Amino acid sequence: MNLILLHPRELTGQHVTLTGRRAEHIRKILRATIGDNLRVGILGGLLGTGCIREMIGNTVVLQVHLTTEPPPFPPTGLILAVPRPIMLKRVLAQAVSMGVSRIFLINANRVEKSFFSSTLIQNNDFTEPLCLGLEQAMDTRLPEISVHPRFRPFVEDFLPELLRECPVRLLAHPEGNQTIAQAGKGLWGQPGQRAILAIGPEGGWVDFEVQRFKEQGFMPFSLGARILRVDTAVPALLAQLSLLRQLV
Amino acid sequence: MNLILLHPRELTGQHVTLTGRRAEHIRKILRATIGDNLRVGILGGLLGTGCIREMIGNTVVLQVHLTTEPPPFPPTGLILAVPRPIMLKRVLAQAVSMGVSRIFLINANRVEKSFFSSTLIQNNDFTEPLCLGLEQAMDTRLPEISVHPRFRPFVEDFLPELLRECPVRLLAHPEGNQTIAQAGKGLWGQPGQRAILAIGPEGGWVDFEVQRFKEQGFMPFSLGARILRVDTAVPALLAQLSLLRQLV
Repeated sequence: MNLILLHPRELTGQHVTLTGRRAEHIRKILRATIGDNLRVGILGGLLGTGCIREMIGNTVVLQVHLTTEPPPFPPTGLILAVPRPIMLKRVLAQAVSMGVSRIFLINANRVEKSFFSSTLIQNNDFTEPLCLGLEQAMDTRLPEISVHPRFRPFVEDFLPELLRECPVRLLAHPEGNQTIAQAGKGLWGQPGQRAILAIGPEGGWVDFEVQRFKEQGFMPFSLGARILRVDTAVPALLAQLSLLRQLV
Repeated sequence: MNLILLHPRELTGQHVTLTGRRAEHIRKILRATIGDNLRVGILGGLLGTGCIREMIGNTVVLQVHLTTEPPPFPPTGLILAVPRPIMLKRVLAQAVSMGVSRIFLINANRVEKSFFSSTLIQNNDFTEPLCLGLEQAMDTRLPEISVHPRFRPFVEDFLPELLRECPVRLLAHPEGNQTIAQAGKGLWGQPGQRAILAIGPEGGWVDFEVQRFKEQGFMPFSLGARILRVDTAVPALLAQLSLLRQLV
């Protein structure tokens, strides 16, 4: 937790009273005391400092001074075939810590049906893993996130509208015979170019899915002979996208 | 487990008898039966197929046919300030799945002392997490791995010999004011160029450590304003190195 993340509704004027996980972190991990300044951020808003004014029992009262915009939001969309719940939580936090503007959790042939009936997906509430990513990266802005239990309507009906003004459309696919740099070549118009990246399930996309993505202008690329777990592939590919964007 | 990894000493002629985790994976996850061919690899050796000849109780007997070299070993060394044990296991598997030739687990000012007394480090046996990485990536070759409980002798006495013929020396450091592409600019002589990457503890390297690395020719670079967890930073940075190597 590199940032104490606050919800706007928790603020009373300049003050906020914390209990639970954040207060415990301040007392036990940061071992902070009255008068110490901590990094804070308002969900969806500014970053700044919180000065500890009171510590009574499990409660910590901060006086908040907000000054700074959060880091830029890379204009990257991530399409992710739903992995098992424990992995999904980890990957959401990873993606948010690296910065993505949208996350689409989709179904695919090789996604196990039970993954869609997990509590996380059923409740459609990803706040906890997303906030872990924000707290890690000292960001305050949540990406939009949506769940798409049917593959074909997502790709054929939902995607086309989204893909306008997004020429960089990349599909991670072990059988792709080009690298991510080759697949994106000539598509990066400017450094702030929007991009969308689709990462399949364990076992990969089936041919039907690859074809539907290709029809929407996605370029398949391969990471090479090595098959990576999704919690390795997601940071690896987001990092490569980020580097390609810098090199434009 | 994308590969059934076998130790050379387990082979009797062309046959191997499996029990335990691998046999269970074959029966319960792959749901394979007699006559099925599975991907196998010999630790340190070739890849091939294993045909199931017998399944009795918890035991699976494979007839092994070895044909193929494992994927190339990226000539990348990874210097890692020791993270907490659960994270260390995960990061070792990630790094091995992406391919590294050497791993140096080192001490640093902000490494918690208790991390060095973990069972994993004390036993100096990293076979389990390393093999998980190999099984994932369908590789058979373990990187060399060494533990260095004292920072200064590692950097001043041990590193210089290793760094010969390795011009790409990169230090991840949030206060670096250049990107990884800028830090490595002009250093990549050829696509197969050796490189070494140093990633610090939670909280980063202290100034003294940065200075010692700089004296050894390391170029500091920053990933930007976002602070990443080590299980995100390691795949992200290895992926960026791999891309920079491709782009030479």
